[in-house]
Amino acid sequence: MTGAFITLEGGDGSGKSTQAGMLVAALEAEGRSVVRTREPGGTELGVEIRRLVQHTDGHVAPRAEALLYAADRAQHVATLVRPALERGDVVVQDRYLDSSVAYQGAGRELDGQQIRDLSLWAVDGLLPHLTILLDLDPAEGRKRMAAREDAPFDRLEQTGLDFALRVRAAYLALAEAEPARFAVVDATGSPEAVHERVMSHVRGMLAAGR
Amino acid sequence: MTGAFITLEGGDGSGKSTQAGMLVAALEAEGRSVVRTREPGGTELGVEIRRLVQHTDGHVAPRAEALLYAADRAQHVATLVRPALERGDVVVQDRYLDSSVAYQGAGRELDGQQIRDLSLWAVDGLLPHLTILLDLDPAEGRKRMAAREDAPFDRLEQTGLDFALRVRAAYLALAEAEPARFAVVDATGSPEAVHERVMSHVRGMLAAGR
Repeated sequence: MTGAFITLEGGDGSGKSTQAGMLVAALEAEGRSVVRTREPGGTELGVEIRRLVQHTDGHVAPRAEALLYAADRAQHVATLVRPALERGDVVVQDRYLDSSVAYQGAGRELDGQQIRDLSLWAVDGLLPHLTILLDLDPAEGRKRMAAREDAPFDRLEQTGLDFALRVRAAYLALAEAEPARFAVVDATGSPEAVHERVMSHVRGMLAAGR
Repeated sequence: MTGAFITLEGGDGSGKSTQAGMLVAALEAEGRSVVRTREPGGTELGVEIRRLVQHTDGHVAPRAEALLYAADRAQHVATLVRPALERGDVVVQDRYLDSSVAYQGAGRELDGQQIRDLSLWAVDGLLPHLTILLDLDPAEGRKRMAAREDAPFDRLEQTGLDFALRVRAAYLALAEAEPARFAVVDATGSPEAVHERVMSHVRGMLAAGR
């Protein structure tokens, strides 16, 4: 596998989509072939799975929900991410397994390590070469979200500030546990300022051989 | 948990549905409260998951498929099987995790032990008190299937005799590995004759305290 796999993580309103867009533009301007994706990532199966989780009447058991998200991830990696990496492309992905650990594991009722093991099985061990954690005070993230016209409010995002604080703490613990993969980026300030911070890490990773 | 959980396993045409029906009738005639089920087992989520696996256009990655079946199982156990067992009912289920191991693990490209671990995580460790393996020469099973007017032919069943032989061998290996849980029942002969064999194991299990 010759490509590079970069994921963007962070709480709601931390700027993942904006930064993904700016990162892709910068890499393409350097002549690189880039695939920008997110889960469900355009696989038909993934879209259907998301619909299922969000619109099933009645209770979805926590383990069933975790397994459905893992299935989405398995399909996305097998049919989209791995083929792109094998072509030598750079893959920029908005959220990956660290989101599951931080949101479902630390934030909800399931054990984070188990969620991580499940995700790693789903993707046959594929970890990103670089994970950018856009770190932001959740209160600030929520302000940004509220100001957006197209603000999405799905099940995760309907939860409160306490939950967002636990997610942030969980993300920071993940970054501390894997310092070689994670770059914690201060997500305050203008999009351009954050982009510069992101690019310094991406350039470092690419210069190191990816 | 005070109920008893009995699963029926075996290849296509081994008589699982027939034997489940006869077993339920016999237990109800003794005054027991019995829940007969199968996966997807009537949960809305399970039905939708099966539809997804069988009708998605294009390729479903093997790990995605295994995770979807595990999600179905998680939902079914959490919302139907466990509540029934907690009420003290006898649950008679057509196929459970041993099917996944025998069909997906031994028969396809994924490792059986991993499939078993995945299923056990999905159901938070719930193993049956008794698993009846209806053992039959696959050639005989296929003859029975072909004679049925309502013969179902889904993706699994469109595969050939070689596959069915591998499934039988996988089932027998599972039974050998867990002799306290499994009862291997000769599935040849009339439904009534097989039923008597099944009942001798069920009576033994119930007499032992379930």
